[in-house]
Amino acid sequence: MTTYIFGALPDLEEGDIFPNRKALTEAGIHKVLMGGIDGNPRQGASSIVLNGGYVDDFDLGDEIIYTGHGGNDPNTGRQIKDQSWESPGNKALLVSELHALPVRVTRGYKHHSAFSPKSGFVYGGLYQVTEHFEDRGKDGFLICRYRLQKIQPGSTMPPEPIQSLPAGNEDSKRQTSTVLRIVRDTKLSRELKALYDYTCQICGLRITIKGIGYAEAAHIKPLGKPHNGFDKADNLLCLCPNHHVMLDKGILTLTDEFEVLGGEYEKVTFKADHALDGENIRYHRAHIFINE
Amino acid sequence: MTTYIFGALPDLEEGDIFPNRKALTEAGIHKVLMGGIDGNPRQGASSIVLNGGYVDDFDLGDEIIYTGHGGNDPNTGRQIKDQSWESPGNKALLVSELHALPVRVTRGYKHHSAFSPKSGFVYGGLYQVTEHFEDRGKDGFLICRYRLQKIQPGSTMPPEPIQSLPAGNEDSKRQTSTVLRIVRDTKLSRELKALYDYTCQICGLRITIKGIGYAEAAHIKPLGKPHNGFDKADNLLCLCPNHHVMLDKGILTLTDEFEVLGGEYEKVTFKADHALDGENIRYHRAHIFINE
Repeated sequence: MTTYIFGALPDLEEGDIFPNRKALTEAGIHKVLMGGIDGNPRQGASSIVLNGGYVDDFDLGDEIIYTGHGGNDPNTGRQIKDQSWESPGNKALLVSELHALPVRVTRGYKHHSAFSPKSGFVYGGLYQVTEHFEDRGKDGFLICRYRLQKIQPGSTMPPEPIQSLPAGNEDSKRQTSTVLRIVRDTKLSRELKALYDYTCQICGLRITIKGIGYAEAAHIKPLGKPHNGFDKADNLLCLCPNHHVMLDKGILTLTDEFEVLGGEYEKVTFKADHALDGENIRYHRAHIFINE
Repeated sequence: MTTYIFGALPDLEEGDIFPNRKALTEAGIHKVLMGGIDGNPRQGASSIVLNGGYVDDFDLGDEIIYTGHGGNDPNTGRQIKDQSWESPGNKALLVSELHALPVRVTRGYKHHSAFSPKSGFVYGGLYQVTEHFEDRGKDGFLICRYRLQKIQPGSTMPPEPIQSLPAGNEDSKRQTSTVLRIVRDTKLSRELKALYDYTCQICGLRITIKGIGYAEAAHIKPLGKPHNGFDKADNLLCLCPNHHVMLDKGILTLTDEFEVLGGEYEKVTFKADHALDGENIRYHRAHIFINE
């Protein structure tokens, strides 16, 4: 059974250059000779190689939108069917996202970006998959897409493979770590949470300490490229942390009648002076919800 | 009724100097003339003034440990009874923590730190309360303590008071925001979560997408000063996001027999090869749990 090594490798540094895929394999960076994703659905993806790929993908250096594999006609290169979240590589990248595994990123000469080499392949460092979503490719079929964000220096992973529980760290300094989740707050989100008295609109839970409520404001259509959702009340829900994660990761979504799909709860509760824009809900169903 | 203004004020800049408390009041920074905490339990605390204070407090500039008010004999200055989380100022700071409100910090000439002025008062910028905990002061009575962390430039708050829901932001750029919660992940925490198959040790919930589990690893005795907990398996639980928040905020804790105090669940479930260090549980009960 293949055991993948996640994270940094000894003697491998960002900017290291390799003449071809065989050299990447021999260096232990990306074990498979073909295929952009190296991993399996049990352990996750340890590495991706960007080389060609979808025209809609973008690469800002520290942030990459990457499209998964499958659905292509090997002769024409045209997409002839939907990609699937269950394809081994695509599911492996989902595992890397949900489990916050570090992913090595290598760029090839056919990859269109300011960070690509003129020839061969260049190792680009460790990234985290922070988001997944669905789109329609230019041939009209479903594609599985991911946002990868660079792990900033000082928080790279140790090179050992995942095995039995290690001894841990008696040093009281914070260990090198990746960020699994950041919950941000704005003036608007604080006001929405106050309107709901910090009660989850899905399950009704009100987490309280000394009577003070804690809740999170969740964007339905995500902010940032390529979604470009707005930070407006008609794109926000007041949720408990569990339902916030489940909305963000596409485990649940809403119907146009505000019923909850993909969970055990029936309907979202609203206050009189709060309404959602149906467009945001439809976007979430089409692009974020993958739990059909 | 007093309406507090949270966040930045027009014409106020970090480093601005004021001769005395009256000038701070007139500038709208800190409305009360006496008292270190300006706020109330309904709206939260908008401002603190550091001037004297507890010997165990520390001030690293970007990070401050601050002790709340109450329990002092006004004649001797000695502590003669426990402080209370229900005291107006202490509770106001808890509200600021739970609701991620920005808090103005001003340092006075009696405050012992490298950032204090020789005379008068200096405005130090906006902070977030990221943690609360209990200690015993040098006179043996309970004190209520807080960690404040500086809000980094570029994420300061708008100066308006909290009122009705604003129109929001159609700009698709991310709005100025504070960070409500950061969930970090290490190799150890990933392995612990795999051991539990991403199932919450308190409620048994397993959040899944396409069969892939999502859980969070929670430190019982917190990392970092002044707690100095270890990043070791005997200090970690695998929890759902809701129970992670509830453990971190001291809403629930564990008995020495691993019963859950402060929640609706009875007992923590363990795998055979995972055990907690009782010292970590006792620390959490004594310092973090405030829901008695």
